[in-house]
Formats: sequence, C-alpha cells, structure tokens
Amino acid sequence: MSGLQPLVRALDLFGTFAFALSGAAAGIRRRLDVFGILVLSFAAACFGGIARDVLIGAIPPAALTDWRYLAVSLAAGLSAFLWRPVIEKLRDPVSLVDALGLAFFAVSGAEKALAFGLSPVMSALLGMLTGIGGGVTRDVLLAEVPAVLRADFYAVAALSGAALVAAGRALGAPALPCALSGGLLCFVLRVAAIRKGWRLPGA
Amino acid sequence: MSGLQPLVRALDLFGTFAFALSGAAAGIRRRLDVFGILVLSFAAACFGGIARDVLIGAIPPAALTDWRYLAVSLAAGLSAFLWRPVIEKLRDPVSLVDALGLAFFAVSGAEKALAFGLSPVMSALLGMLTGIGGGVTRDVLLAEVPAVLRADFYAVAALSGAALVAAGRALGAPALPCALSGGLLCFVLRVAAIRKGWRLPGA
Amino acid sequence: MSGLQPLVRALDLFGTFAFALSGAAAGIRRRLDVFGILVLSFAAACFGGIARDVLIGAIPPAALTDWRYLAVSLAAGLSAFLWRPVIEKLRDPVSLVDALGLAFFAVSGAEKALAFGLSPVMSALLGMLTGIGGGVTRDVLLAEVPAVLRADFYAVAALSGAALVAAGRALGAPALPCALSGGLLCFVLRVAAIRKGWRLPGA
Repeated sequence: MSGLQPLVRALDLFGTFAFALSGAAAGIRRRLDVFGILVLSFAAACFGGIARDVLIGAIPPAALTDWRYLAVSLAAGLSAFLWRPVIEKLRDPVSLVDALGLAFFAVSGAEKALAFGLSPVMSALLGMLTGIGGGVTRDVLLAEVPAVLRADFYAVAALSGAALVAAGRALGAPALPCALSGGLLCFVLRVAAIRKGWRLPGA
Repeated sequence: MSGLQPLVRALDLFGTFAFALSGAAAGIRRRLDVFGILVLSFAAACFGGIARDVLIGAIPPAALTDWRYLAVSLAAGLSAFLWRPVIEKLRDPVSLVDALGLAFFAVSGAEKALAFGLSPVMSALLGMLTGIGGGVTRDVLLAEVPAVLRADFYAVAALSGAALVAAGRALGAPALPCALSGGLLCFVLRVAAIRKGWRLPGA
Repeated sequence: MSGLQPLVRALDLFGTFAFALSGAAAGIRRRLDVFGILVLSFAAACFGGIARDVLIGAIPPAALTDWRYLAVSLAAGLSAFLWRPVIEKLRDPVSLVDALGLAFFAVSGAEKALAFGLSPVMSALLGMLTGIGGGVTRDVLLAEVPAVLRADFYAVAALSGAALVAAGRALGAPALPCALSGGLLCFVLRVAAIRKGWRLPGA
C-alpha cells in the first residue's frame, strides 16, 4: 500500500490529534495544570499504541521513536489549553475525528500485531487495545473508571474493525482492502452508535 | 514433570477461571456493561502473568499466545454476567478455587522467572506478582485502592509459596517437590487466613 | 566517570530511599497494612526506572536484577512503618533528599535512554519519566489523581535536568559535566519551587 502511505500517515496523525484533544479536554475538566494536561494529551493519544508495542515486542515503541506523535500530541494539548472555549464548541466534529482515529488505530494495531506473528484472534484484540488503551490510561490517571468499560459502543466498534482486518488477512486477502473495509466498519459502527445512542447491556 | 502436565494445565485454567470470576463479579458490582465485565474478567485472570512476562522478557506474553486463557476468561465473565444470582451464592467455593488459583500462579510465576534467569529473591517476588497482579489491575480499573494492599493475608500467602519454590530450586531441589510444597504452603496459608480472619498489622 | 561511580551509586540509592519514604508515607496516610506500605515503597522508588527499562528494552529492569534497590526500598518502608512520628517530623529534610533523588533519576534516566539509542528529545522525556513514574504509580495505586499532574513544579524540574543532559550529549559534550550540570539544574529548580511555591498555570 505504498501509494497510500501519505494518506495513511495523515489519518494516523489526525487520529493522534483527536485522541490528544480528548485527553486535554479531560485534564482541563479536572483542573490539572498545563503539564498535567500535556501528559494526558500524550497518554490518551499514544498509550494504546505503546501498550501494544510493549506486548508484541516492538521496542522501543513507535510513539517514542517517531517524533511526530509527540509533536502532534503536544500541539493538540496546547491548543486545547489556549482555546478552551473553542474546544468546547467543537465537540461534534471532534467526535467524528475521534471515530476516524479509532478506526485507523484499530486497523493499524491489528496489522502490526499480525506482522509480529500474533494469531488473528489476538491481533484483533490488540487492534482494539490500540484504539481504546489511550482512553483507558487517561481515565486511570484521573482516578476514574474508564468510560469504555461502563456503557458505550466504542470498544466493540474498534474490535469489529480489527477483527475484520485480522480475519481477512488470515484468509489470504491483500492488506489494502482489508484495511479499508475494517476501518470503514469501525467508523460506521462508531458514528451510528453516537447518532442512535447504542449501548451494550449492563449489569 | 511431564507426567503431571495435564493436571498442572487443568489447575492453571481452573485458577484463571476463578480469577476471571472475581473480575466479573467486581464489574457487575460496579454496574459496568458486558464489555467492561469481560475486560475485567480477562484483566483479573491474566494481567498478573502478563506483567511478569513483560518484566522478564517473555514476549509476547503467554496470555496472548495461548488462546485458552482468553477463552476461559471470557467463559467465566459471560457465565457471571448471565447467572449473577448463582455467582453470588457460590462465594465460598469461589474463594477456595481462588486460593487454588493463587497457589498455582505463585508457583508457576516463580518457576518461569527462575527459568528466565532472575535471582531467587526476585523470582519469589515475581511469583507473588503473578498471583496478585490481576487483582491489582482489576481494582485500579475500578478506581479503587487494590484490596491486596489494604488488609489481608493474600499477598503473603502467594509470596510464601513462591519463596519456597525459589529457595528450593536455588538449593538444587527438583522442580516437582518444590512446586507441590510451594503450592500447598500458599493454599494452606490462604485458606487458614480466610477461615481465621488473619490480617497483617496496619498503619 | 568510573572514579565517580561510588558517589553516583550512593546518590542513586539515596534517591531510592527518599522516594520509598514518600511511598510509605502515602500508604500510612491511607491506612494500608504493612504489606501495602512496602509495595508502595517499592513502587514509588522503582517503577519510574522499571517503566523506562520496559520502554527502552532493558529487560529485565535494573530494579529486578540489582537487589540493592529492593533492599533499600524495603528498609525505607519498614523504617517509615516503625517510626511513623519521626517520619512526620522529617518532612523538610525528606523533601531535600527527594529533590536530590529526582535530580539523580532524571540524569541517569536520560543517560540510559541515550545509551539505548533513543533520540535526545525522547531521552529527555524518559529521564523525566524515570523521575516522576514512581510517584505516578504510587498515586494511581491509591486511586488518586497523580500529584505531579495537578499543580507543581516537579516534572518540569526533572525535564529540565534531563533535557540539559540530552542536549549536551547530543552536542558531543562528555558525560560527567552533562550529568553534573543537568542534576544541579534539576535540584536547584526543584528546591526553588518548594521554597518559593512555584506552580504551573492551571486550567
């Protein structure tokens, strides 16, 4: 998929920016200082991928070797800190960017786990972990039960997209159609869940 | 210990099931959705071993390469979700299964750390970590102070069993008697602690 | 810097002791049992370095292969548990020892990350992580928002010292002057922040 690399990279950094915004917004809401807000931005954007890389042995993690993840995370965190009222108003577009980021992270996480030799089932789970790990870290650092565990159709969207990628690749399909359909499935499920208020059954 | 492998494996999966039940029960108590309950089941059952494997360099961790850990964790979580009243009534047997799981995890954790070249003292600690790490993760995800840190005779039972294994192996004893006596020590201490209400001194 | 190794080692263990005291004090304040207090001592003293080592691939982490980190952490935790009133009175000296520990951890963390091939920017961040990671773990285990994220001039002192080391080394300066000036910068900033009540702007 060399011809699509610039697009893929742009989507990845787009997703990183959206996730970092969600971390910064959470930090602002909890009255952290500017350092804490930047830490939450980086954690929300990059800890899903870092956890995946530690678990599959991709050391040092990509977020620590490619400076763009850090730069985009800090830019998002600083923007959120400086223009807090604007961030508030952007809630809906941010949700869409976040859904796009989730789709990309789920797909790239599953692909990377497969490339490191994990089974399709575990690769699907690692794709989901790449998508939700940052948000879980953000919430744990704020001493809150992770939102994704409570009631939402967020992790299932990530898992569905990652599972489609892993299944397609296990059946011998080429990378590009798998990535596109997996990402599309995740994105559509997530946006539909937001629009229709889908939730999983609770206890 | 090849002749005992099926028994050992059965005990391991037994322990995984019991730990996953404890995670699911905690998730139900905190009103998570079904996805959150399954995540807590897997985390409580497998994150002790995952933490150990990351620290000793056994990458990818066993819980991500052997599908049975995942399958047993999900089966336990789904069972707990579907039969919540039954799970409540089973509290006592679950405690016994949990003590058995703790014993096995402490022993296998210490053995694995020794096999990866760690010192006996650190192997004993990693055996303990294998036993308590899942419960700590479960409680951190629920934004609670880990139960094992507060007041109980849980970690000490795991540490005692793991230490016996590590000491015996350091002194040249064969694996099987070390594993059996270490596991027995952990199990007996834990059951006695439950029965007699043993606690460590507090602050 | 072979001639300075004993001094460096002494400072390192000094810092480990101070950080372990902070963990033990937090555990005592939250009424943990003696096991929980010792776990918090070890976590506060060693988890910054452990996180760094996992991320850069220095497996098993130094805190699991050099028994002195464990011994010093446990000694600090037990001392705090046994002499609780004394620990309370020592608050000011402990802050100074803590600042010294922070300086050493920031410098040694950055040096180690550089030695494992990370970029200067990421090495500076890993130096900061080495300094603050233990405190973050301590607070997460106590289900609190990490103090370092809220309002303080703690992480910035660590980052400044680590950045000076990383920048100096990237420009070809020898290790010893970089380490000394980086450590001094961190220490002076931290002590000044305590004395003058410096804080970062908040949300």
